[in-house]
Amino acid sequence: MKHFFSIILVFALSALHAQSVKSPSNALEVTFKLVNNGQPSYSVNYKGKPVILQSSLGIKLKDKPALDSNFEIISTKADTFNESWKPVLGEKANIVNNYNELTVSLKQKETNVKMNIIFKVYNEGVAFRYDFPKQTELNYFIISDEVSQFNLTEDYKTFWIPGDFDSNEYVYNETKLSEIDNTKLNLNNGIGVKSIPGKYVVQSPLMMKSAAGIYINIFEAAVVNYPVMHLNVDGTKFKLTSQLVPNAIGDKAYLQTPCVSPWRTIMISNDARDIVGSQLILNLNEPCKLDDVSYIKPMKYVGIWWEMHVGKSTWDYAGSQNASNFAEKPVASGKHGATTENTKRYIDFAAKNGFDGVLVEGWNVGWEDWNGNWKEEVFDFTTPYPDFDLAAVTAYAKEKNIKMIMHHETSGSVANYERHLDRAFDLMKKYDYPAVKSGYVGKIIPRGEFHDGQTMVNHFNFVVRRAADYKIMVNSHESSRLTGYSRTYPNYIAAEAARGNEFNAWSTGNPPNHETILPFTRLLGGPMDYTPGIFEIKMSYYDKNKTEQVHTTLTKQLALYVTMYSPLQMAADLPENYEKRMDAFQFIKDVALDWDDTKILEAEPGDYLTIVRKAKGKESWFLGAITDENARKSEIKLDFLTKGQKYKAIIYEDAKDADWKNNPMAYKIRTVEVTSNSKINLVLAPGGGTAISFEPIK
Amino acid sequence: MKHFFSIILVFALSALHAQSVKSPSNALEVTFKLVNNGQPSYSVNYKGKPVILQSSLGIKLKDKPALDSNFEIISTKADTFNESWKPVLGEKANIVNNYNELTVSLKQKETNVKMNIIFKVYNEGVAFRYDFPKQTELNYFIISDEVSQFNLTEDYKTFWIPGDFDSNEYVYNETKLSEIDNTKLNLNNGIGVKSIPGKYVVQSPLMMKSAAGIYINIFEAAVVNYPVMHLNVDGTKFKLTSQLVPNAIGDKAYLQTPCVSPWRTIMISNDARDIVGSQLILNLNEPCKLDDVSYIKPMKYVGIWWEMHVGKSTWDYAGSQNASNFAEKPVASGKHGATTENTKRYIDFAAKNGFDGVLVEGWNVGWEDWNGNWKEEVFDFTTPYPDFDLAAVTAYAKEKNIKMIMHHETSGSVANYERHLDRAFDLMKKYDYPAVKSGYVGKIIPRGEFHDGQTMVNHFNFVVRRAADYKIMVNSHESSRLTGYSRTYPNYIAAEAARGNEFNAWSTGNPPNHETILPFTRLLGGPMDYTPGIFEIKMSYYDKNKTEQVHTTLTKQLALYVTMYSPLQMAADLPENYEKRMDAFQFIKDVALDWDDTKILEAEPGDYLTIVRKAKGKESWFLGAITDENARKSEIKLDFLTKGQKYKAIIYEDAKDADWKNNPMAYKIRTVEVTSNSKINLVLAPGGGTAISFEPIK
Repeated sequence: MKHFFSIILVFALSALHAQSVKSPSNALEVTFKLVNNGQPSYSVNYKGKPVILQSSLGIKLKDKPALDSNFEIISTKADTFNESWKPVLGEKANIVNNYNELTVSLKQKETNVKMNIIFKVYNEGVAFRYDFPKQTELNYFIISDEVSQFNLTEDYKTFWIPGDFDSNEYVYNETKLSEIDNTKLNLNNGIGVKSIPGKYVVQSPLMMKSAAGIYINIFEAAVVNYPVMHLNVDGTKFKLTSQLVPNAIGDKAYLQTPCVSPWRTIMISNDARDIVGSQLILNLNEPCKLDDVSYIKPMKYVGIWWEMHVGKSTWDYAGSQNASNFAEKPVASGKHGATTENTKRYIDFAAKNGFDGVLVEGWNVGWEDWNGNWKEEVFDFTTPYPDFDLAAVTAYAKEKNIKMIMHHETSGSVANYERHLDRAFDLMKKYDYPAVKSGYVGKIIPRGEFHDGQTMVNHFNFVVRRAADYKIMVNSHESSRLTGYSRTYPNYIAAEAARGNEFNAWSTGNPPNHETILPFTRLLGGPMDYTPGIFEIKMSYYDKNKTEQVHTTLTKQLALYVTMYSPLQMAADLPENYEKRMDAFQFIKDVALDWDDTKILEAEPGDYLTIVRKAKGKESWFLGAITDENARKSEIKLDFLTKGQKYKAIIYEDAKDADWKNNPMAYKIRTVEVTSNSKINLVLAPGGGTAISFEPIK
Repeated sequence: MKHFFSIILVFALSALHAQSVKSPSNALEVTFKLVNNGQPSYSVNYKGKPVILQSSLGIKLKDKPALDSNFEIISTKADTFNESWKPVLGEKANIVNNYNELTVSLKQKETNVKMNIIFKVYNEGVAFRYDFPKQTELNYFIISDEVSQFNLTEDYKTFWIPGDFDSNEYVYNETKLSEIDNTKLNLNNGIGVKSIPGKYVVQSPLMMKSAAGIYINIFEAAVVNYPVMHLNVDGTKFKLTSQLVPNAIGDKAYLQTPCVSPWRTIMISNDARDIVGSQLILNLNEPCKLDDVSYIKPMKYVGIWWEMHVGKSTWDYAGSQNASNFAEKPVASGKHGATTENTKRYIDFAAKNGFDGVLVEGWNVGWEDWNGNWKEEVFDFTTPYPDFDLAAVTAYAKEKNIKMIMHHETSGSVANYERHLDRAFDLMKKYDYPAVKSGYVGKIIPRGEFHDGQTMVNHFNFVVRRAADYKIMVNSHESSRLTGYSRTYPNYIAAEAARGNEFNAWSTGNPPNHETILPFTRLLGGPMDYTPGIFEIKMSYYDKNKTEQVHTTLTKQLALYVTMYSPLQMAADLPENYEKRMDAFQFIKDVALDWDDTKILEAEPGDYLTIVRKAKGKESWFLGAITDENARKSEIKLDFLTKGQKYKAIIYEDAKDADWKNNPMAYKIRTVEVTSNSKINLVLAPGGGTAISFEPIK
């Protein structure tokens, strides 16, 4: 289904001062205007009321006149676009891409440089980008700053994390816009490398809510060959301005015409479900560029990973704290997790429970002093520790029909990783690993670069493209956050790029509202490998002196498999912990990873979220409901189920006295028969959740 | 032959103020002393007279106390070393490595950091380095500065090029030390990227001569995992201080103990021949680390290269000035040099004249806008232009017993090159290319890095090691200059890394004295691919309006094959230019590339140089004699020839009226029979040279 409708408007230049375009629903309206001395600006109304006041647009160039004023409009063009497309893996089998478009073609007086600003207006939001056509007046150029403004009308409630060029692994703060202040944060939060550029800089996606109940989300899509955009907040005027992440020498982006900036997106709705359920970011990316997607498959996996986080075993083999001396007769510390034997145990567990894969971290030489030293040659990505037998592991996994997931920790030494990438992928193909989890803990090498700069954005995207050459899927951790590139390269199956479950094992952790915010922020850009499924909630289980814990109940961990979309899902806890609670584990075994349909039933950022999804190509549905630190009850209508069909609903819910803090592992499971006319009462404990599977009764 | 003799001296600490060590000949003496507040210092005497006055030593660290004072001597150790070793390819079959060594072990008060300073004293020079042993007090560290001083005694005549972090392709200036001033240079010299850090900074090797005729050369050896050292000149006090090349954020070197600095070398002699003939730099490098050196062979080659420099053809195919659009139906400009047909012509010429190889530049897509744009993804090193058929060329070369030399121009985009390196080398192996010429024209990417920084030093060395994995020889152009790494990795067969012959084609060129200085500077570190052999000296031959020319006579071009040592030698001119003068070309056909022995007969930097070499495993000798802009006569005794053996000497010399400027191509060739008792009169024109081959008469 593709419908295209164009009008090209060319007026007398003097008449062209304001141009408007509305969403297909007519609720949103964007107006473009040249103001003052030919300065581009825009504003946005929602249902007739201003939401974004007149905000300036522009780009500053290094060693060239700024592209922020002195423009005249050459022409404007209006388009309507309505299609649907099928993601390789996704929340829906068909994604509707329906918007009205306005292209404003500008020319700068004196320089004659041409620049277009393109607006796309969807029902749930507005997007715009800068477009630099091929021209003799502008070929190679360096962006020194982007000055895209977002002038808000009031002091919104805001869910924010500090601007940080190197990390997005923060808990969310919930304050007024005017109260944003990075100097007031407790930064003893388990994050190793922080580069916070200023007091009032925050990251996008930035989720906000007005007093009148208007939800706004500012983000970006299709960050390709461009740095990440953070937002500089003027809390007195409620004005946000783009702040691009610099490179080692302070430049922002090196470009050559023809080229485009990423899309700057403003989602706006009076219903939070429109935002959390939006496919806007994916829609704004280029369609799939891979010819062969046959190897891109969802994966449910276990792995040698959480046992290191809880201190049961270690990534490193020798504990010598000097990997460069590793060749000098290392002595095993006895605590190494990634042994052939231990791997076989995980493979056995995965095979027995119908899983797809097993991840092994710490399999390769280099972990002795991998972290915190800004060391360049850390890993070679091809040399296993003496107690990890690649061939034996592969043979055993094959016998059990399990796929192995490779692990490439780079320590942030990207120069080193790129030098070894072909060899690393060659090894993966030799041993039949279909997917890699990459890691970027540490300060970046090339030194002076940041995780969120153009260099690193290009690196993350490059790894995905090169992996595609080998038909390998990528799951990047500590990368810059996704902005929909997985539409274009669907082998980019997941990323971390936010504060994951692991922080609960050894830091202040993630507060109970954390997972109610992530779907409004990080997940808008693509799947997150959050690694849910922790059943032993309290770390005192491993060590009496530990006070750390996961800040949810056990059934909330189950619900996360539905609320945190990812086609790659880990059952992160230890096999022995699941074996004690196989009744609850059944939900993790059953839950699908790829979907025909998704419906957001209830949503309020920072408070609660209830989602149901229909398994791809099946009649099964799965529901996940989560709440923050407050208990919650609600009644859910099951009208999403197929009419006339009976279903067996297995309900995994918090026990009556459950509580994330004092009694997190108390759950009950009940089975009921339901139809589309049924209702179910959800009863969530503080920090709790409910997970339900609906299987059709034949 | 290996002789080892050690004395370990441990005195009461208070008594340990000065320690001395002499050269095996006793002519040189180095004295180490702690002065002032425990500051390390050294001085050097030559034949009893001070040459280096008390000069301080030290290293400054980032975020740690400087290692430049507050030291005490823990112990000292004296050694004597005398061995000889056989280079894979070289100027001599056996290289003698004979020196006395003094190791001073220091400990810093308060920090307890241990640092050793090691001196090696050879007959022709002194070397010292900093040695950082493994210790808990110092593990990872960042060098922010090195403060090695060289306090000279007087205002030496100095052959210098300006300090430049990005280029060493300068002509030499010949002034007093006190007259050094980079602001007075004419920088309209054809060098594309210049990064001159200050008014009084010069590059090493720095060649000097005192009024009394003492020659001094300051340089460095074994620059591995460390930036290049330039020299900051205090012209009033005749004091030089090390200036390390920074990285993008101003740091100099990232190190981990145990580690060492490069050797800082001071060659000293009253005979210039001792310096130009020294193997000191090679001796200070690690022995060969390659197991298999069977593929490392000398190569005499022609190539599609000079024809682009003279404007006859182009590197690029389409001339579109936008390689990123190359895929959009490029139209051949008709001037592309690297066609299959043209390559076959060069292969024919090479085969007919007994050459080993053919280089082809411009064979691969990317040249349309390769230069000057700081563009990251320029070349992929694997995609040929439509008119260059890799398979056909390889087949043809194989049939003619010619080896192809690959070309990898990086445009300075090293990040991009490293990403493609395995693929590029795979392609070379597939098509049986045994050697690669790499190029680094342009500003470096990672952006902010310099050609001479630690990052790039590591890159150049890395490429050589990775090439060794594929049994490939490397010839790097626009790299940092060699400091003897070819001893350790003899597949590093040559480098440019100085102002080569190419500048004569399109710039102010290289003055007639240029080639009399290079052997005292650049060539001390290893072979240079100078690309001599230009027979059509004046560029007006190609275009009447051109005034550029090579600043030598034709026979001086022949002599360069002997005076400019390299096991990789190009006959750089066009086949058709050689075909017009096959009598002179005979010398290029005959001259050897690898040697049993080398004798420096006459040498004066900036004035003249006469060298004879004996071909490896043969009785043939070859002589090269060159002069600067002044005509020169000298009588050469042939006592180097084997006694009792008769030789046919073919003498290629300037014609009577030859002159580099007005009559550069006038030569004559005469043949005489000689023995070791004979003498030959050399008569060199202004800017001229003589080349002689000595073949034993059977």
